[in-house]
Amino acid sequence: MNWHYLVDEYLPTLIAIRRQLHRYPELAFQEVRTAEVIASTLVSAGLEVKTGVALTGVTGLIRGVGPRTVAVRADMDALPIQEQSQAPYASTVPNVMHACGHDGHMAIALGAALVLQRLRHHLPGSVKFIFQPAEEGPGGAQPMIAAGVLTAPEVEAVFGFHLYNSLPAGQIGLSYGQTCAATDEIKITIVGQGGHGAHPHQTVDAVVVAAQVVTALQTVVSRQISPLDAAVVTIGSIRGGYANNVIADRVELWGTVRTLSEQLRAVLPTKIEQIVSGVTAAHGAAYEFVCNPGYPPLITDHALTALIEASAARVVGPGNVVRLGPSMGGEDFAYFAQAAPAAFFRIGSGGEAFPYPGHHPRFDFDETAIGIGVRVLVQTVLDYFQSTAAS
Amino acid sequence: MNWHYLVDEYLPTLIAIRRQLHRYPELAFQEVRTAEVIASTLVSAGLEVKTGVALTGVTGLIRGVGPRTVAVRADMDALPIQEQSQAPYASTVPNVMHACGHDGHMAIALGAALVLQRLRHHLPGSVKFIFQPAEEGPGGAQPMIAAGVLTAPEVEAVFGFHLYNSLPAGQIGLSYGQTCAATDEIKITIVGQGGHGAHPHQTVDAVVVAAQVVTALQTVVSRQISPLDAAVVTIGSIRGGYANNVIADRVELWGTVRTLSEQLRAVLPTKIEQIVSGVTAAHGAAYEFVCNPGYPPLITDHALTALIEASAARVVGPGNVVRLGPSMGGEDFAYFAQAAPAAFFRIGSGGEAFPYPGHHPRFDFDETAIGIGVRVLVQTVLDYFQSTAAS
Amino acid sequence: MNWHYLVDEYLPTLIAIRRQLHRYPELAFQEVRTAEVIASTLVSAGLEVKTGVALTGVTGLIRGVGPRTVAVRADMDALPIQEQSQAPYASTVPNVMHACGHDGHMAIALGAALVLQRLRHHLPGSVKFIFQPAEEGPGGAQPMIAAGVLTAPEVEAVFGFHLYNSLPAGQIGLSYGQTCAATDEIKITIVGQGGHGAHPHQTVDAVVVAAQVVTALQTVVSRQISPLDAAVVTIGSIRGGYANNVIADRVELWGTVRTLSEQLRAVLPTKIEQIVSGVTAAHGAAYEFVCNPGYPPLITDHALTALIEASAARVVGPGNVVRLGPSMGGEDFAYFAQAAPAAFFRIGSGGEAFPYPGHHPRFDFDETAIGIGVRVLVQTVLDYFQSTAAS
Amino acid sequence: MNWHYLVDEYLPTLIAIRRQLHRYPELAFQEVRTAEVIASTLVSAGLEVKTGVALTGVTGLIRGVGPRTVAVRADMDALPIQEQSQAPYASTVPNVMHACGHDGHMAIALGAALVLQRLRHHLPGSVKFIFQPAEEGPGGAQPMIAAGVLTAPEVEAVFGFHLYNSLPAGQIGLSYGQTCAATDEIKITIVGQGGHGAHPHQTVDAVVVAAQVVTALQTVVSRQISPLDAAVVTIGSIRGGYANNVIADRVELWGTVRTLSEQLRAVLPTKIEQIVSGVTAAHGAAYEFVCNPGYPPLITDHALTALIEASAARVVGPGNVVRLGPSMGGEDFAYFAQAAPAAFFRIGSGGEAFPYPGHHPRFDFDETAIGIGVRVLVQTVLDYFQSTAAS
Repeated sequence: MNWHYLVDEYLPTLIAIRRQLHRYPELAFQEVRTAEVIASTLVSAGLEVKTGVALTGVTGLIRGVGPRTVAVRADMDALPIQEQSQAPYASTVPNVMHACGHDGHMAIALGAALVLQRLRHHLPGSVKFIFQPAEEGPGGAQPMIAAGVLTAPEVEAVFGFHLYNSLPAGQIGLSYGQTCAATDEIKITIVGQGGHGAHPHQTVDAVVVAAQVVTALQTVVSRQISPLDAAVVTIGSIRGGYANNVIADRVELWGTVRTLSEQLRAVLPTKIEQIVSGVTAAHGAAYEFVCNPGYPPLITDHALTALIEASAARVVGPGNVVRLGPSMGGEDFAYFAQAAPAAFFRIGSGGEAFPYPGHHPRFDFDETAIGIGVRVLVQTVLDYFQSTAAS
Repeated sequence: MNWHYLVDEYLPTLIAIRRQLHRYPELAFQEVRTAEVIASTLVSAGLEVKTGVALTGVTGLIRGVGPRTVAVRADMDALPIQEQSQAPYASTVPNVMHACGHDGHMAIALGAALVLQRLRHHLPGSVKFIFQPAEEGPGGAQPMIAAGVLTAPEVEAVFGFHLYNSLPAGQIGLSYGQTCAATDEIKITIVGQGGHGAHPHQTVDAVVVAAQVVTALQTVVSRQISPLDAAVVTIGSIRGGYANNVIADRVELWGTVRTLSEQLRAVLPTKIEQIVSGVTAAHGAAYEFVCNPGYPPLITDHALTALIEASAARVVGPGNVVRLGPSMGGEDFAYFAQAAPAAFFRIGSGGEAFPYPGHHPRFDFDETAIGIGVRVLVQTVLDYFQSTAAS
Repeated sequence: MNWHYLVDEYLPTLIAIRRQLHRYPELAFQEVRTAEVIASTLVSAGLEVKTGVALTGVTGLIRGVGPRTVAVRADMDALPIQEQSQAPYASTVPNVMHACGHDGHMAIALGAALVLQRLRHHLPGSVKFIFQPAEEGPGGAQPMIAAGVLTAPEVEAVFGFHLYNSLPAGQIGLSYGQTCAATDEIKITIVGQGGHGAHPHQTVDAVVVAAQVVTALQTVVSRQISPLDAAVVTIGSIRGGYANNVIADRVELWGTVRTLSEQLRAVLPTKIEQIVSGVTAAHGAAYEFVCNPGYPPLITDHALTALIEASAARVVGPGNVVRLGPSMGGEDFAYFAQAAPAAFFRIGSGGEAFPYPGHHPRFDFDETAIGIGVRVLVQTVLDYFQSTAAS
Repeated sequence: MNWHYLVDEYLPTLIAIRRQLHRYPELAFQEVRTAEVIASTLVSAGLEVKTGVALTGVTGLIRGVGPRTVAVRADMDALPIQEQSQAPYASTVPNVMHACGHDGHMAIALGAALVLQRLRHHLPGSVKFIFQPAEEGPGGAQPMIAAGVLTAPEVEAVFGFHLYNSLPAGQIGLSYGQTCAATDEIKITIVGQGGHGAHPHQTVDAVVVAAQVVTALQTVVSRQISPLDAAVVTIGSIRGGYANNVIADRVELWGTVRTLSEQLRAVLPTKIEQIVSGVTAAHGAAYEFVCNPGYPPLITDHALTALIEASAARVVGPGNVVRLGPSMGGEDFAYFAQAAPAAFFRIGSGGEAFPYPGHHPRFDFDETAIGIGVRVLVQTVLDYFQSTAAS
């Protein structure tokens, strides 16, 4: 079955769609126009389309000839960043920008949908394309799963992917198991007792206590976890006090805790609170501690990852498939990976002309990655049905 | 010479003036109406009055019969505090309040001026009354001295005073030598390198470095100065960072350094900067350090203080004159004490009904302190001329 | 070629040798009696034996029929630990004990030597057995390599192994690439200025400075290395001062720095010294810093490790071969891996009856691991010659 | 009554006694030979002498003509220091030295005793000379008081003194009220959990916790006491751990806490233990905390100090009497001051030729201080009886 000419055929359209989406980026759960582009493309191609899933999400179903179903997921939202670009397709919306390549993700998923739809009579199963809002937060994966996107028909495997400027276009990267980090948020308030800056003994100096808390928190990573585990405890923001000569009664610490396993994720907040509790008690201060769970760690399925590794090798050659370590970044595809066997791959999209990483105001990517992404996805879906049919 | 009946005579007027001033408080260098009250009272009494000295300051000169001149200083400004009071004379100006008793100070100085003016033909010298703006900052003493208030005629001694709720009305407190603290301001900026909260190794985390700086600064007082010296290093405000998952590139520390001697004052900024420099270098960060000199330490003259001690004892009885240690608070009367021999006394104004300290929104004081203050001032001026005439 | 019956035949002898070695443990570079046991066993079997290599090391060469040579390495030394054991073969030497299983390592290597020697006429190459002293430190690998054990004949691959109570007997563990840590030693002296405990301002308190150094060092791991890299900075010992009321002039910190790559290993001492330098400068102290390189990281060859993985699977079944992460422990086999392609495997030797880890005074291991170890080694050597002959 | 010629007469003898005592220094509670010198001198002069008081203490009583009794106290013990001196009277005992001037103290007290004994028929009261052992610790004052030296006859005032190289010979220093510090000893043990240096997460690193405790303790002085109070918290000694690559299970901190008032002294151990408790809890460690009370603060009587000030002025001139701040050093004369009204003065004994402070191996003092000390003591005793007789 030769289908690569179909990719060639659709490629100009896909690039046009990508650029259109790039021009009109939309923030989380506001992807209204974006959803219309996706839905109309899918409907025109003949897929069964649902819109308004988890507010702005879209799904498209290709009915193959067998009873089984796999899914492909793409994300839709842009970021609150002012683009700094001379490109003709630069964002037209002030302070909103597709700085993380989700425009490309949608083009790639649409391309795979168009190609596979053409192949549907030969497809041994169905393929559901899931376009989710709000990946950059607060997260669209969970509400879409809650809305039933993995059922009716029952999805038995999900494939996710991300453009990746750390690899040149032409390469594919993937990780077995630990792939992205859990990203939990902590808020710590040190509650001292304010007073005149000249009379420290009549106060509990929240600045001094907060400083010792931040310092002591370093031991979570340096001493309390295995050197062979990965974790980050970052206090991104500290603020407290009113004036130079008034002792602060409160200091607020706001941070992120990142881990690659649920085991470590489960214990770190306790270790952190123990430090906060002990250090504040040492100085007669009180505290408030909140840990808001973010995305879980993304743990990929071993067999599905091996499948992608092989499929990608057929597309780009074995020497262009790279095993990557995990990333400490987060990805709400993790919720799909909790709900079904899942694999995730990175599509090289960098190179000399594309030096900026995601979330940078000058971020852009090599559009040849779009065709490669489509081919890897199509190949993977085809190989999946073939390999699992055999077993 | 019996003059106490004159105090009795003026007292109702003085209390009325104090209450009027309290109702219409004015902030630093905006004491326009206040200056009018003072000037008109002094002019009516026949003093030689100058207004508009250092913007809103007022002086009044009583010409005595000898060539010598002493000065009495009072401060005029109110604080940016919303008064919480049921008193009929409560502030009528939102967010402005005489919360430090300067209304009382002006009443006392006016009272002494009125009494001494009546005694001028028997006075062996002249008395200059200096009403200065902006004692709470940025400071009116220095500009008034620059405007020449201690010259023409040349002032040979200056007396200052402050109401003091830590002593009951009826008592007088004073300190030999070290009386109030130098109050210098420090601004420290820790300059790291920002980045994603998940990738600390690509950054220099300014929050972590700032925490270690604050912690290390504790050793200035705990280890680097004599336990028998007094100093305060307070970081009143700390702020840095943008979000929970973005590593901060800058943290700003804003603090006060208080010392009781010019010697110690001179070395502390160096010790502080050395700590900032070393700790930032330890972590590959940079820094900015600024020390803005505030008021100098108030060091009183020994002989003049002994004079007040004796004069006050004649007014309130020796058992009601209390030697106080220095205060870590600042007082810009210190500039007068640098320019001329000076002494400073505290007029007990507290008691069960007046529990709140200065700068509290419920601050008020026992008005019987006004009469006592007038008497101590008059007695001190009379004794001064007598004692120095003898010598 | 069925050779497993040979292992069965030798096993009682190997266990007897292991127990004899266990009874008479010898410390680093004192393995005289141990070397005699090894040498006499090898000589009796007909190998070409060299003794006195790097003082107490022994090599035995099996001449196969082809020109190529591989090596197997075992370590000989015991630890300065008083054994706590009821076993009939417990150490008879006070305060010396084979607490790390080197007795078992020697028995396994001897077993492989005896079996392979019997197969020498069918062996497509030669096999050199290297018994090295002083693995626990100061290290026998380096001097043995310097003495030429990898040359004449030229060794083209080296296999090492270790008993491992974290896996049950019957399992084999191995790591691709990063396997054991570099173990460098740091000595930091904080040089302050002593004095009377009552007069801190006349001193530079080395205890206070050392405390801040130890605290700041936590940021090396918590902030300065990638969360995905592994490193340990441990200060194992701190000491300074003379009396409760005398301020210490010196504090000595003694620690270990462990890394899994030469890249990270190369930069950590600089980062550590930068912290020491900055923090001491912050407080006006001086310092001395020494980093004594220990063993390098053990990085295994990918192809050789894959070979062992396959060979071990033939012995214990694929389900009993476990991929392990790296260990932060050190292993001077790393020097062999620097000098030649090398692989390293762990022979499961634990189980309920053997709960204690290496270096514990109650350490013992499941002797069934000896036979398994011999079989994996023999299989690996045979497979090596076969696979490389094919290529 | 002219008695100064008597001082002149005795001075050569006193200097000879001082030098003899210097040659044969004796440590705490071993002052046997020293006691013999004192006792024989006093007995020869006709005083009522008791020996063996609190082991090695001596008292001598001069019976005056009135019923009242005052006391003079001197201390007898030397220090465990190897003298570095070329003086003909250098210590002949290895590692024992009168490095704190107690030899001079004894000579001065003996001189006053000899002179006052000659004046006894004109003395309106009795004078008891108390020679106490072990002032440098563990303290002889308390056992001598317990042995009754302040009773039978009842002592109504006690005078103590110390040579003082910070003032030149010819000057006398004294302090009103707070004079010397309480010197309490603290022992803190941080109890973690040891383990291999490569596996910090399996341990509680006592070195890291101890470092944070020492750092946090700085806030006791920097934040928790009034800047106008004096206190010292010194950790003189820190030690813990065994090797570079073994995580320490215990670290011992040994320190001194010095305060000038019983109020502050009473609260500091609680504040210190709170810090230790909180910081150890923060890190999952345990602790042991002991505070061993040392000498109390020496608080002198105001009237008695004023008496000495006046008497000393009669001897050395008013310009040579210096009011000193308190010292953070300890002095077990504090126990006498707790038991009876007491005053304490310092006898200037320094100058260019005597630059070394007490406890220095090169310490020596200007012997002209001996005569001055005798005269001030005699004058003070005479003035005491006269002034109190008058009242």
